[in-house]
Amino acid sequence: MSERITAGVILIGNELLSGRVQDANLTHIARELGKRGILVRECRVIPDTEQAIIDAVHDFRTRFNYVFTTGGIGPTHDDITMPTIAKAFGRKVVRDENIARAFEEYFGDRLTDATLRMADFPEGAVLVKCPATIAPGFRVENVFVMAGIPRIMRAMMEAIIPQLPQGQPIMELTYTAFTSEGKISFGLEEIQNKYPNVDLGSYPFLQDGRSAVSLVARSFNTDALQQAGHEIRELLENVEAEMIESPTGWPEIA
Amino acid sequence: MSERITAGVILIGNELLSGRVQDANLTHIARELGKRGILVRECRVIPDTEQAIIDAVHDFRTRFNYVFTTGGIGPTHDDITMPTIAKAFGRKVVRDENIARAFEEYFGDRLTDATLRMADFPEGAVLVKCPATIAPGFRVENVFVMAGIPRIMRAMMEAIIPQLPQGQPIMELTYTAFTSEGKISFGLEEIQNKYPNVDLGSYPFLQDGRSAVSLVARSFNTDALQQAGHEIRELLENVEAEMIESPTGWPEIA
Repeated sequence: MSERITAGVILIGNELLSGRVQDANLTHIARELGKRGILVRECRVIPDTEQAIIDAVHDFRTRFNYVFTTGGIGPTHDDITMPTIAKAFGRKVVRDENIARAFEEYFGDRLTDATLRMADFPEGAVLVKCPATIAPGFRVENVFVMAGIPRIMRAMMEAIIPQLPQGQPIMELTYTAFTSEGKISFGLEEIQNKYPNVDLGSYPFLQDGRSAVSLVARSFNTDALQQAGHEIRELLENVEAEMIESPTGWPEIA
Repeated sequence: MSERITAGVILIGNELLSGRVQDANLTHIARELGKRGILVRECRVIPDTEQAIIDAVHDFRTRFNYVFTTGGIGPTHDDITMPTIAKAFGRKVVRDENIARAFEEYFGDRLTDATLRMADFPEGAVLVKCPATIAPGFRVENVFVMAGIPRIMRAMMEAIIPQLPQGQPIMELTYTAFTSEGKISFGLEEIQNKYPNVDLGSYPFLQDGRSAVSLVARSFNTDALQQAGHEIRELLENVEAEMIESPTGWPEIA
């Protein structure tokens, strides 16, 4: 499985750990990378502190092919991600004159020194520009640093995706039916053991007050996936589970 | 600050890392613990693999006062959290006869061996029972293991909260106004430096197409919080920012 391309996601922000804000970035990043054949292996949610950022970045950048961070690149005192990434890589912070000029043109007299901070980057960083903002994200080695605001993060991801290699596509089959996990558990385990290349997940939920289960098979291997899918359908038929074509009780990928 | 009670949250589930499912548990856990005066310091989202679970549990249980896990305690093959926690603590897995009997009474002839797995726990674990399910969560030392389904996790949190010590309450003040971060950044930094006991966050958003900012001050220290709050309001008045009493562009705690 050494050809798999992996990623780690670091969500930076006290507001995520206080429960003030519900993260919406991990799901988006994971789906976009999944389409590109890149697997997210782990995510960390950490506070806006230098040590937490440095520890997470060092750990992830050696364990995964790519690292994506969100949050902490605005103009206020709690936006410490940029200088901290510079410190983690032992690089100076330098101003990008083109970005500084873009801020001057946009803000004119209203430009502040705080806003100009967003024209500073670790030396040698590759900027991630996007139409949603003048203030770019950036890349240092295998670490991509993005904004935390979902609208801007999404625009940055759109700019980043074409720069990434295309991994082997991950395919997914989903079967959803009214049944209980207890009835199908051992059958599922047999299927999982028979197809070790297929990642088989079981997600129970309630729909109209009845027990239902989504069975999700994911794999790089089309043949194995189709065969496992066939056996999952047989298993559900054997327990006379009523199939649900459009589940409403479980969040589906759009 | 040694009197602060801390927690780490571990969300276990491939579906969270594939982007299939949007987590809703961290926010709830963080808010409930926050009300109890317990600070969530870090969260990890990890796959359903033994090594990932063992590594995260060992790291967190030594760094934080309490650890909360969600996910992976159902009856299917991918539900490996319980035996993995047992392994992490070097404990045998034993069946709880009372829970087994409750399953027998509920399911009768329809009871399967798979369902009965949910009556197994690490030896010496304290069960976390709740009205939402027959299958309990459990506690081993400072680690609480809960279901991943939000409805059930919430019921389990409700059962756990009274067992936790009451930390020093964390208070929060929020000021929201139409302004840009660039205008207030240095003023905010001065306030932050003046009140190191106050955690001051700045969260920009758009409302009706206009730039707006939520300034959130959190602290254990009532006096410092009130003084910092007073200075934040003055700062906003100085830049003639229009206050927003009921922001619609930013998720507020209910």
